[in-house]
Amino acid sequence: MSKKVAVILSGCGVFDGAEVYEATLVQLRLDEAGVEYQCMAPNVNQMHVLNHITGQEMQETRNVMVEAARLCRGNIVDLAEANPNDYDAVIVPGGFGVAKNLSSFAVDGTDMTINADLVRFVQGIHKQSKPVGLVCIAPALAPKLFGEGVACTLGSSEDDAAKAVMAMGANHVPCAVDEVCIDEERKLVTTPAYMLDIRISQAAVGIGKLVEAVLARA
Amino acid sequence: MSKKVAVILSGCGVFDGAEVYEATLVQLRLDEAGVEYQCMAPNVNQMHVLNHITGQEMQETRNVMVEAARLCRGNIVDLAEANPNDYDAVIVPGGFGVAKNLSSFAVDGTDMTINADLVRFVQGIHKQSKPVGLVCIAPALAPKLFGEGVACTLGSSEDDAAKAVMAMGANHVPCAVDEVCIDEERKLVTTPAYMLDIRISQAAVGIGKLVEAVLARA
Repeated sequence: MSKKVAVILSGCGVFDGAEVYEATLVQLRLDEAGVEYQCMAPNVNQMHVLNHITGQEMQETRNVMVEAARLCRGNIVDLAEANPNDYDAVIVPGGFGVAKNLSSFAVDGTDMTINADLVRFVQGIHKQSKPVGLVCIAPALAPKLFGEGVACTLGSSEDDAAKAVMAMGANHVPCAVDEVCIDEERKLVTTPAYMLDIRISQAAVGIGKLVEAVLARA
Repeated sequence: MSKKVAVILSGCGVFDGAEVYEATLVQLRLDEAGVEYQCMAPNVNQMHVLNHITGQEMQETRNVMVEAARLCRGNIVDLAEANPNDYDAVIVPGGFGVAKNLSSFAVDGTDMTINADLVRFVQGIHKQSKPVGLVCIAPALAPKLFGEGVACTLGSSEDDAAKAVMAMGANHVPCAVDEVCIDEERKLVTTPAYMLDIRISQAAVGIGKLVEAVLARA
């Protein structure tokens, strides 16, 4: 039977939502592998809306799920209604939306909270010994989701986000853009992608390896 | 000297802007080919804003260039300020934004008008015998941009958009998702992508061939 993978999106656009290249490349690599996937997102408002040219805040309110639907041609479900029993793995692309909409990491750092539906879903997948893939900034959620000692990468250990995950008890592993970090015990696969200063073709390599490693463990 | 390609975006999201997969895949294939590219868009308001889950219009105003910036991590320029002399080719990804924001095709059909800056830029490229690539619905602009007799594809000749380009004087060539239509005289390359009912991995093949054919003629 074909595998089915959940892809959790955090909005649409790197600065206030999901990183568009990463979200697209995850879907591309899953589809190239012949695997079915379903995008999902929390039905909550974004922390804020940023003009992606100027970086300035716009006086608007946008919904994470409604905007994330732009990244998957409208084929999206509410994370709150998704059942981990229905999926063989989950992958979370990056973008500031992970730290602003899926969690409060951007504001609260190591004191962050994580969206309750995301915790329920990802831990539900994990408890069934199914693999989890976290891209870019998403591994910042790893210590709270998987507990102390979890191995993950945010690229360079000098990065502030990497220092934060270490402070939260993670084993941070430096990693190049075209490689992945695998915590075999927890079946957690991470790759730095746009945590590093890279090109889209480099992101495609690392994300391709992440998808491959996740599917191999599903 | 490395080639530089202009990529014209029409917003962010298939139903009221640029098709996200197509916009990303064009950038991916250009970068994989080692070619520099620059995204650009008209600094005008979108025709409307659609909720991509329900298809319903939202009572908002969004700017095409500001939203398109989400598809390229903010690295975008105003189409009105772009000079065709600075580029070796131009590619326009699809999405309803082409028919709603870059032209009035969605409303006016064969009586459509095309954004004046787009006409100036694309014809400027064409007059210098540089290649043009149009993806998905974007070939609907071909007869007005290149004149009668231009060969292009929108996938199936039974499609209403294909019938419209034929009515405008184009030579419509049926084409599969993993192929391209090339008008050698005009150096125009087109591919149907999401004009057909396809998967993202199929779009990646056709768009890969389009990028390859455009670069081979640049």
